[in-house]
Amino acid sequence: MTTTANPIDLSLYLVLDPDLCGGLDEMVSTAKIAAQNGATVVQLRAPQWKKRQWLLAAQALKTVLAPYHVPLIINDQLDIALAMDADGVHVGQQDLPASEVRRLLGPNKIVGLSTNGLAQFHEAEAMYQAGIIDYVGVGPVYPTGTKKDASPVIAVDEVAAMLQNRILPAVVIGGIQAGKVAHLMAQGFDGVAVVSAICGQADIAGATQGLLAEIHAAKGGTK
Amino acid sequence: MTTTANPIDLSLYLVLDPDLCGGLDEMVSTAKIAAQNGATVVQLRAPQWKKRQWLLAAQALKTVLAPYHVPLIINDQLDIALAMDADGVHVGQQDLPASEVRRLLGPNKIVGLSTNGLAQFHEAEAMYQAGIIDYVGVGPVYPTGTKKDASPVIAVDEVAAMLQNRILPAVVIGGIQAGKVAHLMAQGFDGVAVVSAICGQADIAGATQGLLAEIHAAKGGTK
Repeated sequence: MTTTANPIDLSLYLVLDPDLCGGLDEMVSTAKIAAQNGATVVQLRAPQWKKRQWLLAAQALKTVLAPYHVPLIINDQLDIALAMDADGVHVGQQDLPASEVRRLLGPNKIVGLSTNGLAQFHEAEAMYQAGIIDYVGVGPVYPTGTKKDASPVIAVDEVAAMLQNRILPAVVIGGIQAGKVAHLMAQGFDGVAVVSAICGQADIAGATQGLLAEIHAAKGGTK
Repeated sequence: MTTTANPIDLSLYLVLDPDLCGGLDEMVSTAKIAAQNGATVVQLRAPQWKKRQWLLAAQALKTVLAPYHVPLIINDQLDIALAMDADGVHVGQQDLPASEVRRLLGPNKIVGLSTNGLAQFHEAEAMYQAGIIDYVGVGPVYPTGTKKDASPVIAVDEVAAMLQNRILPAVVIGGIQAGKVAHLMAQGFDGVAVVSAICGQADIAGATQGLLAEIHAAKGGTK
């Protein structure tokens, strides 16, 4: 581990989708209940939004999450993160380079990067050692729909190669539902990122607690 | 006039649309030829793009515009402007608040704001006096298509009320083609913003020169 990384507990990483959550108010409520019940990170992802709505939503989320000390990560929109002083930014391979995000956010914010294969994971490790990123998202590891071409699934042996001897904190993402967590955690991830396993569920608290129970069991009670 | 405003010559303001221009390379070439032939401002607007493409395109435009001292304005994406040190940012009413843009860009960059009526124009005047914005875009003043509901056209008397006794630099935008310039400049605008009157034209240099001739004639040879 480097000493420059910002600490982040990736155990249960909730990615908010405003549409899946049922709108802005329901999304903010979902984030609050998830944080109350043990979610460790919340990310806002709303590529369909104009920035005025982004800003208002991010500010509302920051307010409800603050009492639980759950970091709020902004997907892609670095300017929103700067405007409302988010805890961090998550970027994909087609977004701003992580090095630019780090430069503009400064050293004390969380920067995450999506990776979809071993080559990107190795690049990310170098960025981690250079203090550019704090963690990676890895995925998808399951087909998330019937169209296999739509999002390339990382092969099982490639995931294993990523996680072997790694130093880089890694959260797995993509189509993860209750019941699949133990299998994923056993591969060596630090946590699971979920969207629809919490967003849009009838019982947000119960869904969150259920996922956490799986995570903690998989970690063997170390958390 | 306040003394805090950043100077900008709004006479011929080219808004680049990558699709209308025929792709990235053609767009950069269009910007260069337009700048060579007298365009006074170039704005990049590409809401369909991911930020990695935004950044590369903005950097390419900055390089070709630099020799002509034509400012490059980034539409909406403040983070792109920060990452590649653009000359300014233009925002609409649903984008980041101009006050946030000014705070994050600092005092020496150009900030523009779109206005679509007298109330917004008066708000913009206060922002100009406070040093938040440097100019406004006003429009549309023509129906830009057959669907009149799609973009509300500002009434002629409302435009007149805006421009009477104004202190705020104003460029008119929306469906402006060669031949319409004199009429618009006579209403008192500082310049015209065009998209398809340059982007996608067979003769970019000729189109630019033609528009400029109209602008200069309308200004009575003062520029």
